[in-house]
Amino acid sequence: MSKIAIDMMGTDLGIKPIIDALKVFMKKYDDVTFILIGAEKELKTATAVAKLDNTKYEIFATTEVIAMTEGMMEVRRKPNSSMVRGTELLRDQKVDALVSGGSTAAFLAACHFIVGEISGVSRPAFMPFIPTVNKGKSVLMLDVGANLENDAQDLVNFAIMASVYAQEIMHNPKPSVAILNIGEEASKGKDYHKEAYKLLANNKNIFFKGNIEPRNITSDVVDIIVTDGFTGNIALKTLEGMAKNLMGVIKYELTKNFYRKLKAFSLRKAFRGIRETFDYRNNAAALVLGLRAIAVKTHGSSDEKSWISTLELTRTAVVNDFVQKMTVKLLKGD
Amino acid sequence: MSKIAIDMMGTDLGIKPIIDALKVFMKKYDDVTFILIGAEKELKTATAVAKLDNTKYEIFATTEVIAMTEGMMEVRRKPNSSMVRGTELLRDQKVDALVSGGSTAAFLAACHFIVGEISGVSRPAFMPFIPTVNKGKSVLMLDVGANLENDAQDLVNFAIMASVYAQEIMHNPKPSVAILNIGEEASKGKDYHKEAYKLLANNKNIFFKGNIEPRNITSDVVDIIVTDGFTGNIALKTLEGMAKNLMGVIKYELTKNFYRKLKAFSLRKAFRGIRETFDYRNNAAALVLGLRAIAVKTHGSSDEKSWISTLELTRTAVVNDFVQKMTVKLLKGD
Repeated sequence: MSKIAIDMMGTDLGIKPIIDALKVFMKKYDDVTFILIGAEKELKTATAVAKLDNTKYEIFATTEVIAMTEGMMEVRRKPNSSMVRGTELLRDQKVDALVSGGSTAAFLAACHFIVGEISGVSRPAFMPFIPTVNKGKSVLMLDVGANLENDAQDLVNFAIMASVYAQEIMHNPKPSVAILNIGEEASKGKDYHKEAYKLLANNKNIFFKGNIEPRNITSDVVDIIVTDGFTGNIALKTLEGMAKNLMGVIKYELTKNFYRKLKAFSLRKAFRGIRETFDYRNNAAALVLGLRAIAVKTHGSSDEKSWISTLELTRTAVVNDFVQKMTVKLLKGD
Repeated sequence: MSKIAIDMMGTDLGIKPIIDALKVFMKKYDDVTFILIGAEKELKTATAVAKLDNTKYEIFATTEVIAMTEGMMEVRRKPNSSMVRGTELLRDQKVDALVSGGSTAAFLAACHFIVGEISGVSRPAFMPFIPTVNKGKSVLMLDVGANLENDAQDLVNFAIMASVYAQEIMHNPKPSVAILNIGEEASKGKDYHKEAYKLLANNKNIFFKGNIEPRNITSDVVDIIVTDGFTGNIALKTLEGMAKNLMGVIKYELTKNFYRKLKAFSLRKAFRGIRETFDYRNNAAALVLGLRAIAVKTHGSSDEKSWISTLELTRTAVVNDFVQKMTVKLLKGD
């Protein structure tokens, strides 16, 4: 039986979508129990109303909340917050995994300071699943913002960790890896790009495909993209913004007059297909990689569907003993 | 009478779209003559066939071509190439401006080594016009790839140069400026971001709006975005790739079956509006800023329409004495 802790507080939509997701999840899986961390009264009422199976969860009462807009400083200022208590449970191995939908900056700080990294990893990396042109196929990109700067060895570690994930969890025996860079040639980029290129090309356990230009992030040409956190964060936010703005322009043009609205309505299935392909809400969960335990961050505005997929991803990582397998590979350096 | 040199070689579509554009341009403007640099025989034939007004151009014969895929090394290896001869004409003040549709890397190198920068500028910056959600309104972003790394003072110089351009050429008296960064707070980013933030905030001649997140590059919230060349290149290529891939998915969904094709056809005006808003071909020209003279790079696959707008942009910069005005502002440091 595995145990997952959930930081129930600090999300945009409150606890309802999490409770709804738990209800669905608990009916589907019999091998997981939960520790729900947060405001006691609120949680007791909501779980009772939803008639959650009370053999499958316990409530861990906390009194403080780290808000979505708050940063890493709050981790020290609010020791009795649901987020801090959650990372302590993870550190003390009272649970097998922790999930949070709260402030990303605070969660990364709590993971780093309280849980800590696998030997050889200096700071964790943040790895989302980025949708590609092939509906349902994501590319793993890391780091996208847990670090400001990374060196060549960090990029190699990222490649190893994500490869283990792709192999063990996604059942992809030969996940291809590329470095995000301004050009495809080995000579492109900064010194650490060139050094990482050499190290990855010489690592016989990594399926290295060279550099990838940002125009191909969503083209489904590789399985894993490694980058320093600053560059990855810039690329991810550029993608999200462009997708949002382009969908906005499409909506504007298609609802400009009654005739267009009518025609567009008749194509609603096609537009649903387009939206679903690049809807970042279908990829709400991101892994915090490099920690001694499994920590998963889901989007702050995750709905029930997003929470279900987040819990399923977390369960799969736990059941497959992901951190143990990754640690072995990292220590071997391949 | 102004004189513009055109590097006629090394583009994807050959000289025809350039000749066609010149024909239109020459009928519209009486204050510009041209030096067309390239293969003599080809140029003589094409200009004669098109019946270009031969009082308005001369042909400068060269024997070598720097290909689109070639880089900065070719600048030294091919002294009699159209690109190198063009930059020499610009250096020697035989022309008021130079336009090229050839290799970007080679062109930037030729501009740097042959033309040289204004005092105080260490390397030129590459400034494209990026389309926004407001059709017809572009945002100026620099640098997007002429430099790998930039310091805080470079970012200030970029802000000054682009502000002069926006004021003198685009008639925007108060162009707003923001730094591309991973968050909006002044404390975000690397050291040079924080330093540039302070310098720009204290510069009373710059209309500084703080940091901008990449998700808002195309949201039309500022007029000018300054960034180091590596980050700018990553963001620009991410934008272009996402726009292309999203349009690809739209096309796929809308042509999936006959019914959808039919309905989509009836909405073709709406889709043209969408395509035009984010079509990077409508913004083919980019300025090489910081040089002692006006150099304009247009897209390698520019068609007649793109070449006309490129030539008009170049003429406007020449007529408004842009480099002279920019130099004065840069030397004053505001």
